[in-house]
Amino acid sequence: MDSATTIKVPEAVLAERVAAALREAGASEASLAAATRAMLHASRHGVDSHGVRLTEHYCLMLAGGRLNKNPQLQIDHKAAASAVVDGDDGLGHYAAYRAMEVACEMAKTSGIAAVGVRRSSHLGAAGAYALAGAEAGCIGFATTNTDSMVALFDGAQRFHGTNPLAFAAPVPGQKPWFVDMATSSIPMNRVLLHRSLGTQLPEGIAANAEGIPVTDPAEVNMLLPLGGADYGYKGAALAGVATLLSAILMGTTLDTDFIPMYDAEDTSTPRNMGHFFMAIDPGHFVGTSAFGDGMLRYLKGLRGAPARPGGQTMAPGDREWTIAEQRVVAGIPIDPDTARFLGLAEF
Amino acid sequence: MDSATTIKVPEAVLAERVAAALREAGASEASLAAATRAMLHASRHGVDSHGVRLTEHYCLMLAGGRLNKNPQLQIDHKAAASAVVDGDDGLGHYAAYRAMEVACEMAKTSGIAAVGVRRSSHLGAAGAYALAGAEAGCIGFATTNTDSMVALFDGAQRFHGTNPLAFAAPVPGQKPWFVDMATSSIPMNRVLLHRSLGTQLPEGIAANAEGIPVTDPAEVNMLLPLGGADYGYKGAALAGVATLLSAILMGTTLDTDFIPMYDAEDTSTPRNMGHFFMAIDPGHFVGTSAFGDGMLRYLKGLRGAPARPGGQTMAPGDREWTIAEQRVVAGIPIDPDTARFLGLAEF
Repeated sequence: MDSATTIKVPEAVLAERVAAALREAGASEASLAAATRAMLHASRHGVDSHGVRLTEHYCLMLAGGRLNKNPQLQIDHKAAASAVVDGDDGLGHYAAYRAMEVACEMAKTSGIAAVGVRRSSHLGAAGAYALAGAEAGCIGFATTNTDSMVALFDGAQRFHGTNPLAFAAPVPGQKPWFVDMATSSIPMNRVLLHRSLGTQLPEGIAANAEGIPVTDPAEVNMLLPLGGADYGYKGAALAGVATLLSAILMGTTLDTDFIPMYDAEDTSTPRNMGHFFMAIDPGHFVGTSAFGDGMLRYLKGLRGAPARPGGQTMAPGDREWTIAEQRVVAGIPIDPDTARFLGLAEF
Repeated sequence: MDSATTIKVPEAVLAERVAAALREAGASEASLAAATRAMLHASRHGVDSHGVRLTEHYCLMLAGGRLNKNPQLQIDHKAAASAVVDGDDGLGHYAAYRAMEVACEMAKTSGIAAVGVRRSSHLGAAGAYALAGAEAGCIGFATTNTDSMVALFDGAQRFHGTNPLAFAAPVPGQKPWFVDMATSSIPMNRVLLHRSLGTQLPEGIAANAEGIPVTDPAEVNMLLPLGGADYGYKGAALAGVATLLSAILMGTTLDTDFIPMYDAEDTSTPRNMGHFFMAIDPGHFVGTSAFGDGMLRYLKGLRGAPARPGGQTMAPGDREWTIAEQRVVAGIPIDPDTARFLGLAEF
């Protein structure tokens, strides 16, 4: 974010304002607590696109009726290691945290467990739930499909969403190993940032309406999958993994079939979004202690590996933990529109 | 492969010769059948690097004692949805197929199951096992870690292997949805091919010994992770997923600790390689029939999506099925060294 146009707000104040706004919009305490937790996760770790700036959007959808203010989650235990949570069209974060909780509980008994969610909505950053899995001692995995925005390999149409894959694993005495990655190279709002700054995009990450790669952000109609013009079939396949697990396995909406997330005309129709969460308990494989030792040895090797000139070898998550440490001290940067909406102009 | 220097051999003949060579080297019938099946999978689908050309290498390792000629698999059922197979240092394909079989059996009861393998060896193409899962009606996932060959993001040292991620899902009346991808952009033998042809590499896929990206194949010391110079942190994290699940969760060898796969001096020390397999039964989520309908609808949309000029939108696996169809008719191309080893000079 441009520091000239932002204010910085202590996390506790921000959490209180976000919760108050959702409460004002009618959300139940349980569902607004989950949404606040997930938005703060994103804002704390530098994923501002999925952070507290979404509060206003969620409030609009609560007011319009797309989001159920008082969702009653239904957990359908299908088998020893599988369940499906019905999100009752509430804030997606509520169903998502609950699903990962159930996955971890089942994994402690079964070794691995998968819990899907149907009749859900936008869940914020998928990484929040993978991380919750790691905090419960499991290897956590979270994914969701989202609105079409990314071309297929060689495609000339928005097909998949930026469909994230998020993994986290516990590390004894340290923050978890953690990655939350879109299966496109960059998110669409990075294109919008380049557009507003008047800077060119890197090659091979976005295309015009004919699917032809472009670097002028003004010409961009869709993103290209991770791997770019030459290896984008890999990113497209990974986006497909998100769709298979989140939508097809749950019987929910395909990427191309979503009514738009941001639609001023329709704020009342639920989107029936699906998600997929998985937890693995290392205790039912090599053992919790041996797994922890292995993670420590692996990360020591990784962080100690030589870097190319000017670079630094970091473990997945290290960048996020550094940002979080800085923001604990300096506060979380908030854009002017969000500051206004949350009544934070005084900061 | 260069068609001028290869011969084309019918699959059945090839399978018989590969099995005979492994038998001659002393491999048990059960383990050589698995290895033959896996190598033919790769050769049939165009993954020649992991196909029958490896027969000679495996025979050397059987002779040297690194590979146990008569491995006795031990299956340790850890919980309702988890197990670990001890590969007894035999041909990796044997333990790998068995592990995926066990995963599918458990998934039919538990919804999802994960089966790891320890004390294993090179398993060929990971996709063979994901596909076996799909053929059993499950969403299959297979991964393994391998010898260090790929830099970390910003790294100047070979760290991860090309660590593949392979997924497959059943589609009613069609070949499965199927992807088997290295977490580097290309395999090292593609670099060697460019070197022998004297052609430049694409940008951002390989680096010199200082970790600096190069396009001259003669200068290449290591590969870069998928995503290239700008987004390689994604490929590096995905390679880490393979290592976490295959090696750390199984208590087996880390990528950086492997004695080399190809080592003329040591053909006797087992490498204690780990793998990880997972199966999901759609019957314990949306239901088998609804999942099939969803796959058909998704693939219809995908294959019908407009392509950019000169391109074609294909589902993951379509390229492989096309190659397999051609090879059923025309035979499987075999390089001269392998033809000689398998006694196929007459074809």
